[in-house]
Amino acid sequence: MTTDTPTRSRRSRRSSSRPERSAQPGQNLHLRTPFITRGIPTYDLLDEGSLERIEATADRILAEIGIEVRDDAEAVRLYREAGAKVTEVTADSWNVKFEPGMVREILQTAPARFTQCARNPVNNVEIGTDAMVFAPAYGSPFVMDLDKGRRYGTIEDFENLVKLAQSSPWLHHSGGTICEPTDIAVNKRHLDMVYAHIKYSDRAFLGSITAPERAADSIEMCRILFGEDFVDNNCVIMGNFNTTSPLILDGVTTAGIRTYAEAGQGSIHLPFLLGGAVSPLTMAGAVAQCLAESMSSAALAQLVRPGAPTILAGFLSSMSLRTGSPTFGTPEPALGSLVMGQLARRLEMPLRCAGNFSTSKRPDGQAMQQAMMSMMSAVQGGANYILHAAGFADGLLSMSYEKFIMDTDMCGALHAYLKGIEVNEDTLGFEALAQNGPGEHMFGTDHTLRHYQTAYWDSGFNDDLPFETWEEQGSIDAATRANQRWKDTLAAFEAPALDKGTDEALKDYIARKKASAADAWY
Amino acid sequence: MTTDTPTRSRRSRRSSSRPERSAQPGQNLHLRTPFITRGIPTYDLLDEGSLERIEATADRILAEIGIEVRDDAEAVRLYREAGAKVTEVTADSWNVKFEPGMVREILQTAPARFTQCARNPVNNVEIGTDAMVFAPAYGSPFVMDLDKGRRYGTIEDFENLVKLAQSSPWLHHSGGTICEPTDIAVNKRHLDMVYAHIKYSDRAFLGSITAPERAADSIEMCRILFGEDFVDNNCVIMGNFNTTSPLILDGVTTAGIRTYAEAGQGSIHLPFLLGGAVSPLTMAGAVAQCLAESMSSAALAQLVRPGAPTILAGFLSSMSLRTGSPTFGTPEPALGSLVMGQLARRLEMPLRCAGNFSTSKRPDGQAMQQAMMSMMSAVQGGANYILHAAGFADGLLSMSYEKFIMDTDMCGALHAYLKGIEVNEDTLGFEALAQNGPGEHMFGTDHTLRHYQTAYWDSGFNDDLPFETWEEQGSIDAATRANQRWKDTLAAFEAPALDKGTDEALKDYIARKKASAADAWY
Repeated sequence: MTTDTPTRSRRSRRSSSRPERSAQPGQNLHLRTPFITRGIPTYDLLDEGSLERIEATADRILAEIGIEVRDDAEAVRLYREAGAKVTEVTADSWNVKFEPGMVREILQTAPARFTQCARNPVNNVEIGTDAMVFAPAYGSPFVMDLDKGRRYGTIEDFENLVKLAQSSPWLHHSGGTICEPTDIAVNKRHLDMVYAHIKYSDRAFLGSITAPERAADSIEMCRILFGEDFVDNNCVIMGNFNTTSPLILDGVTTAGIRTYAEAGQGSIHLPFLLGGAVSPLTMAGAVAQCLAESMSSAALAQLVRPGAPTILAGFLSSMSLRTGSPTFGTPEPALGSLVMGQLARRLEMPLRCAGNFSTSKRPDGQAMQQAMMSMMSAVQGGANYILHAAGFADGLLSMSYEKFIMDTDMCGALHAYLKGIEVNEDTLGFEALAQNGPGEHMFGTDHTLRHYQTAYWDSGFNDDLPFETWEEQGSIDAATRANQRWKDTLAAFEAPALDKGTDEALKDYIARKKASAADAWY
Repeated sequence: MTTDTPTRSRRSRRSSSRPERSAQPGQNLHLRTPFITRGIPTYDLLDEGSLERIEATADRILAEIGIEVRDDAEAVRLYREAGAKVTEVTADSWNVKFEPGMVREILQTAPARFTQCARNPVNNVEIGTDAMVFAPAYGSPFVMDLDKGRRYGTIEDFENLVKLAQSSPWLHHSGGTICEPTDIAVNKRHLDMVYAHIKYSDRAFLGSITAPERAADSIEMCRILFGEDFVDNNCVIMGNFNTTSPLILDGVTTAGIRTYAEAGQGSIHLPFLLGGAVSPLTMAGAVAQCLAESMSSAALAQLVRPGAPTILAGFLSSMSLRTGSPTFGTPEPALGSLVMGQLARRLEMPLRCAGNFSTSKRPDGQAMQQAMMSMMSAVQGGANYILHAAGFADGLLSMSYEKFIMDTDMCGALHAYLKGIEVNEDTLGFEALAQNGPGEHMFGTDHTLRHYQTAYWDSGFNDDLPFETWEEQGSIDAATRANQRWKDTLAAFEAPALDKGTDEALKDYIARKKASAADAWY
């Protein structure tokens, strides 16, 4: 049985004032937290001069090349009124240029840190400065597991994955399009996705961004859940918006950004930069472009509603220059993510960056090596909202059930990592050595007895058994173990309680919406 | 076929002035180097005040508790003459205490950086400051592969693993006891081990430390290989010496240290600290103890021969506090390794630290997740000699053939990581964006064409194919791929040329030594 079920999670919360470990692995009660407060310094890769050159290049991109806004005259109007120089390219596309420094000026109203509320208030997360939030992977059309291989995602998969996320104490947020539920019509699936996040999770989540009316539905469902007043005064949902790189903001995106910002809800502004294809393949240039695109997109949210929660973002990837295939979990984007961290801090804005990236099609050694390379850059770079923290496989085309389990355990280890090293008389432990002196083991020293409950990360997934015990138990590898774990977790899952009236109202809203339009599959 | 054969490696060196990639994956000619010069800053975890407290605790351990030296009156004499306070504990063990600062003073003669010569001078490595060297795992009694599972290592395994190391361009050093060749008598196996390093590799290597006469044999074989004068004036071999934690230096170790130092050869001074068992389980205390033990051991080498190449070291590990099993690749020791990097730099001494640690018994996701957690701390912490960079499995009890392949590819990725991000007009790539403007792909821009040969790490092992292609090719996971790779690499292996007379002299020396004593199996 998994030790990471929500039941256990609730129990631990009650007893968190005096954590006690049983013999069961993987509890780590002292590390459980609704979001992480980073206790280690960020890993600052570049010096001041280099950062200034990147910022100057971002400013130059925005001033001399500009961004192109398509199909949204209202967004263009907002940019123009703020002082941007707008040139018509075609009847429904505009080139928008910003004087150096202008976008930065607009972004001054963006909060450095904000709270996204969850339906269970103990799960409210803070995003920004030293607060960090892990959320599952987002957006894959396929799912895969060891039993059935790769296939298109369905709403059942979607619900399963929300349940797995909710069951892990090492994620803090339910994410958004945890996989595409391709068995539901494109124009209606957002309703089922938002409902699944509300029903099977009591954490914060992301809403739809694929059309302005779907964004509006997502927010409307939150009004049913939280109440209108509460939604007007709190961030309860966020949208994850992609720029169309290089340097384009399409009208669906900008209208969605406006919808979330008008409602005072959060927005993430993400350039997905595949180097060599849609950005320079030198990382300095990719980061400069990332900053330019993310800042100009985020600025729109601030123009709509100054002070709206707004997250800068970077998704840097590389490619195989022999084949043109995207590559993930490679070293150069990891370095770039560290730099994005530095740049976001200089802007005093929250950052979404990196995640457990991989191109592997299996929950294997490659998957975890690449995931770790990428994920370390997110946590060391001080990213605040880390989407793609669990399940990312197959170059984001598939959500892997097994890798989801492996990634969440790694996220747990990162809780311990991010606590850092405390240095004080007690932790320096001179007495532990002095008590028995040279050559004597420390198992029974006062110091050991005082600390053994909380000293080390105790993985609930990794195998640390002696070889012989491991062999007796069937010589099970990590992927097979993960396969069993997700099944056990789903079997033990109990949805967090949801007010019956609210549930009915949500179902009613969904039914009405679904009845009001024919299915569309595009 | 592997692209990482020594043949290819030699070819690439000739053409390194103008690297060109073929369509074959995994060449990365621009990254090949006899050792790495770190191009990124170190990740400095603790502030000045915390570091000073750790140093003060290390000094206090040495001054108030002291170390115990056993069975080596000569070592004790050297410490006493240098000013240490010696107390007899028993007839053949002594407590040795050092006034605060005294050990640091002795270590001032240790070089901050030195060269270890290889029999092929293009493979000479530098160790210290920003120079970093990767070497295979060291000391496991077992080996494992997917075909035959886990079994005791033999000299054939030893030779195979030396060949695999030599075949990877991403290791720089042949290591030492790459596995225990348990089919050779304990008192003779060092001869075969040193010979295998000389015969099947043309890189630098480690010699025996298990008895003073075996250490002497290792050095003597180097005199045959390099010539006596050369050995007197250059570091050609190193010994990896473990303290007996907590706070003991046994006589075999100290005599070995003296043997290497007298010959002007290198020594590594390693406390293997299993927290809660032989060190405090709070990381601040473990690091303080590590510093105290490593410094006092290293000081002996400097007392024997001031200026002898001497490497501080740390092997920090955690344990499962439920079962008492050691755990590897966990977050707390990774943090401790970063701090050891800071402490070694303050002493201006080279550091050996961390490696690709794992407790997994399979070359699976757990193995690589743990490996990466540990290895990132070595490279980000600025360790200079990274033993255990390939093959470490099963909590160091086994050398895994498949993980060896996976780890070396990761070591390649770390070559790209350690280069860092260059920021200049060219890499900022403004022209790449300006050339075609918003919405236009960059495949054909001048900037892309100028950089595509060297832009990204191109893994020679990881699978980045589209899913369908991967499936057509048999849906092969990383472990299976690694299994095929090591077999192909061994099949294609050609030993680097060795002078026939030297080879004969080495064989003759070994034959005489073996004939001079009966086999001993302890």
